[in-house]
Formats: sequence, structure tokens, C-alpha cells
Amino acid sequence: MHKIKLLDDCIHELARLPGVGRKTAARLAMHILKMKPEDVHRLADRLTAFKDNTVFCSVCGGLSEGETCPICMDTYREPHVLCVVEEAKDIFIIEQTSYYKGRYHVLGGKISPLDGIGPDNLRIAELLDRVQAEGVTEVILATNPDVDGETTAIYLTRRLKSIADSAVKVTKLASGIPLGTHIEYADEMTVLRALESRREI
Amino acid sequence: MHKIKLLDDCIHELARLPGVGRKTAARLAMHILKMKPEDVHRLADRLTAFKDNTVFCSVCGGLSEGETCPICMDTYREPHVLCVVEEAKDIFIIEQTSYYKGRYHVLGGKISPLDGIGPDNLRIAELLDRVQAEGVTEVILATNPDVDGETTAIYLTRRLKSIADSAVKVTKLASGIPLGTHIEYADEMTVLRALESRREI
Repeated sequence: MHKIKLLDDCIHELARLPGVGRKTAARLAMHILKMKPEDVHRLADRLTAFKDNTVFCSVCGGLSEGETCPICMDTYREPHVLCVVEEAKDIFIIEQTSYYKGRYHVLGGKISPLDGIGPDNLRIAELLDRVQAEGVTEVILATNPDVDGETTAIYLTRRLKSIADSAVKVTKLASGIPLGTHIEYADEMTVLRALESRREI
Repeated sequence: MHKIKLLDDCIHELARLPGVGRKTAARLAMHILKMKPEDVHRLADRLTAFKDNTVFCSVCGGLSEGETCPICMDTYREPHVLCVVEEAKDIFIIEQTSYYKGRYHVLGGKISPLDGIGPDNLRIAELLDRVQAEGVTEVILATNPDVDGETTAIYLTRRLKSIADSAVKVTKLASGIPLGTHIEYADEMTVLRALESRREI
């Protein structure tokens, strides 16, 4: 059986990406063969430029091209509201709504005893420091609504409430039926949460 | 709404790949951020090395790192049997079986009037030349079993049979129930073909 080493190398590297199996990698490789050379080079350049030049913001832990990210440097953003997210990528989803005007704090994960991740492995001490130093009045917890995320939210609430001389308000993203779907397709835990959190209209 | 330009550029390029939407591209980008720098550079290098150094074999039209591909150069391969495939990538699937010992001929597509692809747009003249020049005794048609692929197979059979002084045998890959599946999940055309092509055991 004959192989083309360049193709094999290309497929091998692509297949290491998450969600990309060997079949998909082979399909992508054949597509790359049909692309214009300049397009392939631009793709490769942008992958490495992104990897080499992106760092984590020293304040919030979000993605940044410099020491401090544009959100932390933006003086128009509300400085007394912090939104706590698990990962840097979650910031982009919230930013897309154009609703939130406060700042962020990235935990770098969630408390997950099974994976050996405890409070000390997350940026929780930094969060408590910021809340005190920046005079934060509201912390919005935007951890994911799964077991570990909820555990993390409960833990953070307790820690935030225990800060001496602090009257910080702790809130959490609402859970419920996602828009654009049907109730019949929602799982019962989501429906239960939506019922509990029903509001008068 | 704040954006990181490097991230945006990276997502934009990834989202141009087939089967990769913006959500998948964002997920891949976040994965790239977690990868080791040397792994990202190797991925980028292999994409461009594959693109820049892979050409099509001047004989069979398959992928090659040089003027002639390893299969066409391999003197141990049966020179009188040609397997006709639509695309260069189809060669790899057939090679994986380690069963076929002949050579290949890539058409570069299939006859598709709706897409404006006629016989003159494919490497059919080259195929007929090779059959005569190389003294080919059997041509195996491995076009896809869809409407255009079958049309192409019928057309090729007629052209191959009409070569003067030639007694070339033309065969076609068998169609039938794929292994490992259940008959109940096969479509009726496949079952019909499997019944027609039934063989005594």
C-alpha cells in the first residue's frame, strides 16, 4: 500500500484537533489541495500568529493581545460589576449580546473533585482580591449549569458573602427553556428550573 | 463589544474549511490556545508543506510528491489492469484494502450535465490513450454508484469497447448491502441491486 508522506503528515496533524477524526481530516486535506496557495498560507499564518501573540489578561484572565485586555482597559465599562466565567471563551458569548457593560473574571475552570480540581487551582483568590480592591458591588456568576458549575457557584457565593465589611450582591444567570425551542424537547430538570423561576408578566 | 483581532482572524480562516461553522471554528481556536506552541507550528507547517509540495501524477492523475507517483513507478504492480476513479482521494480508500495490485487512472470528476461537466472536462482521452499504449487488458470502473457516477461508467464502457482491435475487459465494483449493517436500514435500490447481483455460495 502506497502512501504520500506529505498527505499522511497533514492528515495526522489535523486528526489531533478535537472533533476531527481521520475521515474528516482526510476530507479537510483534500480541500486544502483545492484551495489557492495563498489561502492555505494565510490559514497557517493566522493559526501561528494567534497562538504566538495571544496571552491572558493579567487582570481578568481573558484573552488579550497585550498585558491588559481591551475590556479591562475600557474606562467606559462599569467598574463595580464583575461577571465570573469558567473559561476565557465564555466572555465572547456574553459580549455578543451587547447587553453586559461590566467587567469579567475568568476562573480558568470549575471545581471538579473527580478531575482533582479544587478551589486552589482556580483564580478564586484573585477574584476575592478584586472584589475588595475594586469596590465591586455585584458579582454575576456565569458558570455552566452543570453539577460542577453549580458547585462552583455555591462555593463562590459563600466565599463572596464572607468577605468582611462587604455587602456585595451575588447573582446568577437564569436557567430555563432556551429561546427558539419547544418545551417538549427540554429535559425535566430544565422545565423544573423554569417553573421554579417563573415570573409574573 | 470587544474583539480580539488575532482570534477573529483565526476563527474566520478556520470557518472557511468545509464542515466547519463559526462555533466549531471558535472551539478549534480555543483548543489551539491550549496546544503546545511547537504543535501549532507543526500543524501550520504541514498544511503548507502538503499544499506547496503535492502535485498530480503526470501519468495517473493521483497525488504525488514528484512528477510520477509511487504507484505508477512501482514495477511490481500489474501494468495491464487499470482502476478508474473519480478523484485522487479515492485511490487511498482502495489502497487501504491491500487487495488491488494494478494501477489507477483519475478522471478528475464525473460526467454531470447539470454542473456543466461533460466528457471533455475529464481525463477520458488520456484513459483511452493509456489503454492502448500500455496494452491494458482490464479496466475496473470505480466511479461512485450515484446517477452521475453510473452515467460516467456507462459512457466509459461504450468508449472503451469501441477502441479498434481491443478486447479490453471492463468491470465495475459490486454494489450491495454494506458489511456490518442491517438489511432493514438499506435503501430499496441497494437491496434491489444486491438481489440482482446475488451469487451462489
